[in-house]
Amino acid sequence: MEEKLAKFKALLQDMYDLRSASLLLIWDQSTYMPPGGADTRGRITALLDRLAQERLVDPALLRLLEELEPYAASLPFDHDDAALVRATRREVEIMGKVPPEFWSEFSEHMAAAYQVWTQARADNDWQKIEPYLEQTLEYSRQFADFYPGYNHIADPLIAYMDYGMKAADIRHIFAELRQQLVPLIEAIRGQPQVDTACLHGHFPKDSQLKFAEEVIGELGYDFKRGRLDLTHHPFTAPLSVGDVRVTTRVNEDTLTECFFPAIHEAGHAMHLQGYNPAYEASPLGYWTSASVLESQSRTWENLVGRSRTFWSHYYPRLQAYFPDQFKDVPLETFYRAINRVQPSLIRTAADEVTYNLHPMIRFELELALLEGSLAVKDLPEAWREAYTRDLGVTPTDFKDGVMQDVHWYSGAIGGGFQGYTLGNILSAMFFEKALEAHPEIPGEMEHGRFDTLRNWLTENIYWAGAKYTTIELAQRVTGKPELDVQPLMRYFRTKYGEIYDLGHWV
Amino acid sequence: MEEKLAKFKALLQDMYDLRSASLLLIWDQSTYMPPGGADTRGRITALLDRLAQERLVDPALLRLLEELEPYAASLPFDHDDAALVRATRREVEIMGKVPPEFWSEFSEHMAAAYQVWTQARADNDWQKIEPYLEQTLEYSRQFADFYPGYNHIADPLIAYMDYGMKAADIRHIFAELRQQLVPLIEAIRGQPQVDTACLHGHFPKDSQLKFAEEVIGELGYDFKRGRLDLTHHPFTAPLSVGDVRVTTRVNEDTLTECFFPAIHEAGHAMHLQGYNPAYEASPLGYWTSASVLESQSRTWENLVGRSRTFWSHYYPRLQAYFPDQFKDVPLETFYRAINRVQPSLIRTAADEVTYNLHPMIRFELELALLEGSLAVKDLPEAWREAYTRDLGVTPTDFKDGVMQDVHWYSGAIGGGFQGYTLGNILSAMFFEKALEAHPEIPGEMEHGRFDTLRNWLTENIYWAGAKYTTIELAQRVTGKPELDVQPLMRYFRTKYGEIYDLGHWV
Repeated sequence: MEEKLAKFKALLQDMYDLRSASLLLIWDQSTYMPPGGADTRGRITALLDRLAQERLVDPALLRLLEELEPYAASLPFDHDDAALVRATRREVEIMGKVPPEFWSEFSEHMAAAYQVWTQARADNDWQKIEPYLEQTLEYSRQFADFYPGYNHIADPLIAYMDYGMKAADIRHIFAELRQQLVPLIEAIRGQPQVDTACLHGHFPKDSQLKFAEEVIGELGYDFKRGRLDLTHHPFTAPLSVGDVRVTTRVNEDTLTECFFPAIHEAGHAMHLQGYNPAYEASPLGYWTSASVLESQSRTWENLVGRSRTFWSHYYPRLQAYFPDQFKDVPLETFYRAINRVQPSLIRTAADEVTYNLHPMIRFELELALLEGSLAVKDLPEAWREAYTRDLGVTPTDFKDGVMQDVHWYSGAIGGGFQGYTLGNILSAMFFEKALEAHPEIPGEMEHGRFDTLRNWLTENIYWAGAKYTTIELAQRVTGKPELDVQPLMRYFRTKYGEIYDLGHWV
Repeated sequence: MEEKLAKFKALLQDMYDLRSASLLLIWDQSTYMPPGGADTRGRITALLDRLAQERLVDPALLRLLEELEPYAASLPFDHDDAALVRATRREVEIMGKVPPEFWSEFSEHMAAAYQVWTQARADNDWQKIEPYLEQTLEYSRQFADFYPGYNHIADPLIAYMDYGMKAADIRHIFAELRQQLVPLIEAIRGQPQVDTACLHGHFPKDSQLKFAEEVIGELGYDFKRGRLDLTHHPFTAPLSVGDVRVTTRVNEDTLTECFFPAIHEAGHAMHLQGYNPAYEASPLGYWTSASVLESQSRTWENLVGRSRTFWSHYYPRLQAYFPDQFKDVPLETFYRAINRVQPSLIRTAADEVTYNLHPMIRFELELALLEGSLAVKDLPEAWREAYTRDLGVTPTDFKDGVMQDVHWYSGAIGGGFQGYTLGNILSAMFFEKALEAHPEIPGEMEHGRFDTLRNWLTENIYWAGAKYTTIELAQRVTGKPELDVQPLMRYFRTKYGEIYDLGHWV
């Protein structure tokens, strides 16, 4: 059995090493690749993806998997070998049904679409990207067809990102959240708006980057095992447990577009730097789901990075970086400014309260596209209608509307968005537990110390990698067998009740 | 036959795409990879190299090759298909005899050795790298053993870099060159030395990079299909015909360490940006040999970049970049300074005359190591002796001695150095022909125009990629069936005869 397990791990290692190489090509494409590299980049990434995918359906691997399953079943549920076999089976179920040729063709299409999108978005040119999106929808439907017997056509696409979650369950959770969230947003809208003038001015690029770099380093992002670069769309590239790169962007007119994405991506990255190194290059050495991954970026970005305790430590340093801007601005003004709640067009720039409506809108549109009740050509209009209805704001162009997110232009339609809102729900569930176990955390944050929190997260979440599914993990950490919107709503009501003086209402 | 050829090309494309991915990993390792990435990088590069190598011995490819050879033989020698089949056979002969397992093991060793060398070199720690070098020598010998029947154990290693050249021939050419070169260097030594004070001072990094970037762009290096980064050891990464990256380094105390390596690498890169794009991802879309590749970097670095005509155009711009340094320095003083001939320790910093002795010393030591007449432990001493004997200078440490070049610490021992001196010989042979065809070239350079020269080089050398071997190419371009040291010596005698006032001697 030892020998079989070693052989099994070696086969998995090759598969994950190919994925790591592919991810480096993608990282490079977004950071340093010259334009002339585009012609071949999609083809080469597609080749690596196809070779990785071939390994997942390699009869030798599948035979070993079958042989190891009885052994795994004889082990405790928590045993690493049991988890490895289980996670591989999950992977085979999700990914193994897609033929390598499809995967290769799809990857090549997506690389081309991404390249077109980067230019078309800059030019606000919907016509140019529309046919690519048509094709992406077609591929996404074909993808679902490899999983006959689904309840909803989006289920296989969701499984790929959030294994164990179904469209119907998510609709149910989202309905519950929306029911409580919309009245809160309405109550906030009835109050005087906070002043955000201090966030706008001139913030030199180098200072913004340096401040972000310092902060994420102090939170615990390990620069010896990572780096920070600039891209149009911030992202995290987990190449190995020893090399997890993050990116952000800079807008010199406003402070928030660099700092919060940086801390968000560093949250992802600390998660991916934090798994048991023994899981490297295996299905366990990864995030278990988009929603759990997102829960950690949002923990650091919002629950920590937008808290009064955090800024009571960092605000003096921010003032030192940008003295002209902040020397006469009290902490409280700054704190309220970065927590202003105001419906807006751009998901990634939204406040943490209204944010949740953005993925919900996209999720709803994705389901409609996949169900066939919405055509790609009608998507910009449907987008405008949904934003007007839910957020009371209407995009006047494509680039701040339907073309704003990279997701549909670099991957499938379906499954890519629900994780954001689910992640927020999970982040609050986990954070409540951390505070229960360690009530000293806020006091420590006030002194710029984050290790108790980070260690708790590492121990309870990061170290496990992809050992448990979302629901298994939520149950282990919180004791509850399903997602619960109450911790997030409690957090919102407490924090924003105070900022917006909603005393009697919440 | 059409169908077979298409299948053949598709198989080759996968192989070359894997090599391109592997090269991106290596480029990244030298530029942007955080230290924590090192643990897995060697393993992943080795995997990609192994997969590429497996494709070269793929029975399907070899069968197609055999089937296509009679067809290729029926075509004119110059036909692209004939050349493709010929170049693939050459590749199979050179690379196909090495088992994938060996290749994989060797790559992993070299990645580890490179990582150790980067630190050990900084620490001047020979002890630390010595066991790796022992192992590298062992691998290099094993490599040769895959080619029984060689005349000299270095021949298979040389074939890998300079197909068609043999140790015995190279020894002969080198002896001829040495015979003429050493007296010239002695004559120069007898003359008053030129003053290089103007090259030392403070040259801010950004200005050095910007000047280098401007110049190589104007020579014809296409930044839309490339980029310039900083690494310890400058190199060129040809990822595809549309993405050929160069690197250089900066030393703020001296002007030459950034500029000349940049123009050198840009010379390689123009060569690799200049082949027929139809050869992309095939054995033709590459350099034909290290010596031909080097001939082009040296053409731009030396024959162009150290000429009086070149600087009569660029010197005013250099003065504008560094006014404090150069405002009172006449062009002639600068021209003489960058052409000072003085024996020194560092190959990459050597003047173009004494330079040729550095690769010759390494070539001689490589042959001795491979023959077994020199042990690795005695290499530093043998290095010191050779330098003292040939150049009259003696290294006092390891890092400026035996540990200075990346080659032995990132690849085999043998075959890596002769190309530098052979490249210089070729560069002068080709350049003489270009001037014969276009006597207007120097006049154009004086006005900052390089297109006649670049177009001639593209037409006669670059466009062909690896279609012809070194000797075939030399014959096509110069009409001579072998390498000739006379053009290089004529160039040296004319140029340095004037600078060092050797009138009666040359």
